[in-house]
Amino acid sequence: MSAHQDFIPGNELYVSTFDKGHLPLPPSKKVAVVTCMDARIEPATQLGINLGEAHVIRNAGGSAKEALRSVVISQRLLGTREVAVFHHTDCGMLTFTNEQLHDKVKAEAPGNAAVAAAVDAIDFLPFSQLEESVKEDVKFLKENPLLLEGTNLTGWVYDVTTGKVQRVV
Amino acid sequence: MSAHQDFIPGNELYVSTFDKGHLPLPPSKKVAVVTCMDARIEPATQLGINLGEAHVIRNAGGSAKEALRSVVISQRLLGTREVAVFHHTDCGMLTFTNEQLHDKVKAEAPGNAAVAAAVDAIDFLPFSQLEESVKEDVKFLKENPLLLEGTNLTGWVYDVTTGKVQRVV
Repeated sequence: MSAHQDFIPGNELYVSTFDKGHLPLPPSKKVAVVTCMDARIEPATQLGINLGEAHVIRNAGGSAKEALRSVVISQRLLGTREVAVFHHTDCGMLTFTNEQLHDKVKAEAPGNAAVAAAVDAIDFLPFSQLEESVKEDVKFLKENPLLLEGTNLTGWVYDVTTGKVQRVV
Repeated sequence: MSAHQDFIPGNELYVSTFDKGHLPLPPSKKVAVVTCMDARIEPATQLGINLGEAHVIRNAGGSAKEALRSVVISQRLLGTREVAVFHHTDCGMLTFTNEQLHDKVKAEAPGNAAVAAAVDAIDFLPFSQLEESVKEDVKFLKENPLLLEGTNLTGWVYDVTTGKVQRVV
């Protein structure tokens, strides 16, 4: 049994009431949300975002650094003028260091030079302080020459045990 | 009026019925979904994914290449064994080339060397053929030495006008 086998019936149910085929490409609220890939995060329902309103960029940790390519496309080609960065409690990124993950992957493929070279080339972008990591990501965007001047930047923490968001910057 | 001002009331409504504070960190369906940041995409509702079931990685285009860091963390630290890559119709990534976006950003900041250097350093990962781009991304993951052997890989297209998904690989 693969998880993707559930996608077809899940999608058929969605299509049976779908009436949003007319929405335009640019996000109507001109905002991009950056958040984590975590399975307990569902940005649209947790923030009251409706279909067509916001770009949603997600990766391990909600890294603004990795999101930069997407943010530039979002601003320059699709008109967004606001970026909201969310990290969250109990994040996996708080549990390891680059060295630990590099070592783990290499230990799982002993003597495999291709694996060793590939994993050592990756900065997995872990962090050790939750609120600080949000502030650093917002600072990264604020100081980046590619962000449009006047971009509305905010930083937030989502609590996976209470469902609550809190603004930190 | 900023879009983020709507997040607080939207989140308060969510919190008022939230009862999922007990969910564990690893995704229960052991799957990672890679898809686009597009505002018309809402993976959970469109695929019938419940909170806690799947990692969701999103970026401009749904690039598996950019998602690699997150996929490795998803597999090695959080136990997923399946990756489903979704691209979609009417995607912004079909509308430009790297050269065009590089030129546009530089034209918007004439004579700014920092902007020119920063933008020229980015491969924006545009594509010109939708289904082909899905196949290429799945192939990239299949051939990557960091993906676990036996990973269940699938590739899909989501149609933003009908709400339907279709498997292409």
